[in-house]
Amino acid sequence: MTRAALAIDLGGTELRAAVVEATGRVAAFAAIPTDAQGGPDAVIAQMVALLAQVRAETPAADIVGLGVGAPGPLDPDAGIVVDAPTLLGWRNVPLAAILAERLGVAVELENDANAAALGEWRFGAGQGTRSMVFITVSTGLGGGVIVDGHLLHGRRGLAGEIGHMTISDRPERCSCGGIGCWEAFASGTALAREATKLAAAGGAPELKRLAGSGPVTGRHVAEAARQGDAPALKLLDDEARWLGVGLANLLHLYSPERLILGGGVGSLLPMMQERIEHTIRERAMSPFRDVPVVGAALGRNAGLVGAASLMLQEAP
Amino acid sequence: MTRAALAIDLGGTELRAAVVEATGRVAAFAAIPTDAQGGPDAVIAQMVALLAQVRAETPAADIVGLGVGAPGPLDPDAGIVVDAPTLLGWRNVPLAAILAERLGVAVELENDANAAALGEWRFGAGQGTRSMVFITVSTGLGGGVIVDGHLLHGRRGLAGEIGHMTISDRPERCSCGGIGCWEAFASGTALAREATKLAAAGGAPELKRLAGSGPVTGRHVAEAARQGDAPALKLLDDEARWLGVGLANLLHLYSPERLILGGGVGSLLPMMQERIEHTIRERAMSPFRDVPVVGAALGRNAGLVGAASLMLQEAP
Repeated sequence: MTRAALAIDLGGTELRAAVVEATGRVAAFAAIPTDAQGGPDAVIAQMVALLAQVRAETPAADIVGLGVGAPGPLDPDAGIVVDAPTLLGWRNVPLAAILAERLGVAVELENDANAAALGEWRFGAGQGTRSMVFITVSTGLGGGVIVDGHLLHGRRGLAGEIGHMTISDRPERCSCGGIGCWEAFASGTALAREATKLAAAGGAPELKRLAGSGPVTGRHVAEAARQGDAPALKLLDDEARWLGVGLANLLHLYSPERLILGGGVGSLLPMMQERIEHTIRERAMSPFRDVPVVGAALGRNAGLVGAASLMLQEAP
Repeated sequence: MTRAALAIDLGGTELRAAVVEATGRVAAFAAIPTDAQGGPDAVIAQMVALLAQVRAETPAADIVGLGVGAPGPLDPDAGIVVDAPTLLGWRNVPLAAILAERLGVAVELENDANAAALGEWRFGAGQGTRSMVFITVSTGLGGGVIVDGHLLHGRRGLAGEIGHMTISDRPERCSCGGIGCWEAFASGTALAREATKLAAAGGAPELKRLAGSGPVTGRHVAEAARQGDAPALKLLDDEARWLGVGLANLLHLYSPERLILGGGVGSLLPMMQERIEHTIRERAMSPFRDVPVVGAALGRNAGLVGAASLMLQEAP
């Protein structure tokens, strides 16, 4: 028998399940579109079915429990999803207790960004560190923080809302309603906004061509930049500078041994690395300047593997 | 016998020692000007003499060890003062080992801002919380952070350099050499700089009168503000706004249950509270808006009491 845990990654568009071995290996995997309009009962039924499927594929696994990654805000101690804005009807759902009762296994719940951070820490790009920050840059900008061997929770499990620190006076409005947030300048949404603005002003013909009649996306910028398109390269350079400003802040605040970038925009790190590191050297106090910025290693599996690790390892 | 610990607070101008009981009560206290130009040997001799003095005053104390608060950067695990810019010759001094050998007691070392945070957490304004941030606003702006019952150290013990996060694009130069740091806008030095500028431009006659031929200080601003002087009140209002911007960041990053303001400028909290809380409500995501901002309770004793608590309690 191989020691393993079940894992769920509850996303607004996709529901994913896996059996993860103690080494971090994904022994079985399944995914379906989340019934986001169906309410908690329908989605929980999906989870139970998906878990039965992966469980059937791994008869030799000795299952020690189930780890669940779900959208925040949630209460990890009580195992309650407090609010999941992308899922209809998910308010104060005691998901851990419900699943424990249905499945007869121990269940731990963690917010999705924290689960991904745990995954990268234990099995990915953060292995071997005692302190690291995982930063996921896609539509939004979020993350999870490990300091001195502990995943930070704080009051109501809300520590590490790194996308919503103010880094600028510019009155750029953020998705959170605030102004000047890191997310408002460095998320994929911000990159697409700047690219669309530039294309509309006639400053980026290649991006305009790629986007056709629609808005320019971060993906278009990446594609054009890879071909050496100057306006796209300039947009990525600005993106990298904004990322660097926020990353320098994280160094001062948490003193990690490593910064780990994930998400769609994060995966463009090789094209941004030089400017990011330049910005950090410019802004960080000297003892922080040599901290490496590296890409995430587990891709979309980070959250699943991290959720499983809640059961596979001692509590962080 | 009363269980107690010895404590040292090593400052650039004053060296302070105490016997602190397990309740946090200071049973004996002594202070002398630090021989800052004398080098480590001279200062260590001062420490030994000062500790002998407080020890002699508390014959009934059962001393469990010595806790030392010293300027950072330092390595708390190794007990080494890495660099103390205000003290001549203090580079890589293994202070804990030296004092342990001289005194025959166990010694723990912590940087002074962290020691003060521990003091406020265990015996002051942070009692009863699991997560809190202590912010000291005087010449500089520093602090110590407790999350989920642990004092954050991070790599090289450098977590919680909160004064050096970027919060603005304005090219205001910070003492650290960086630009846009919180400290450059919200420290006592920044307040004095703005006040001096305003007085020089003729915009603050009362401040000019108080300062005479010298520069305007934070103390002058506080004095004039207490008398209702409009320019001084406006300066404090701006100070409070800058404090609020940074405090809102700390809420998102650490999710504390309480923010605790100390230091000379921090003690002006009653005059700044309304604007600070207004700024937080404006900038923080809703679940963070009700976190209280309170004044430190232990004043200058926070560091001593916190250093003692390193020995009196289990490791944080």
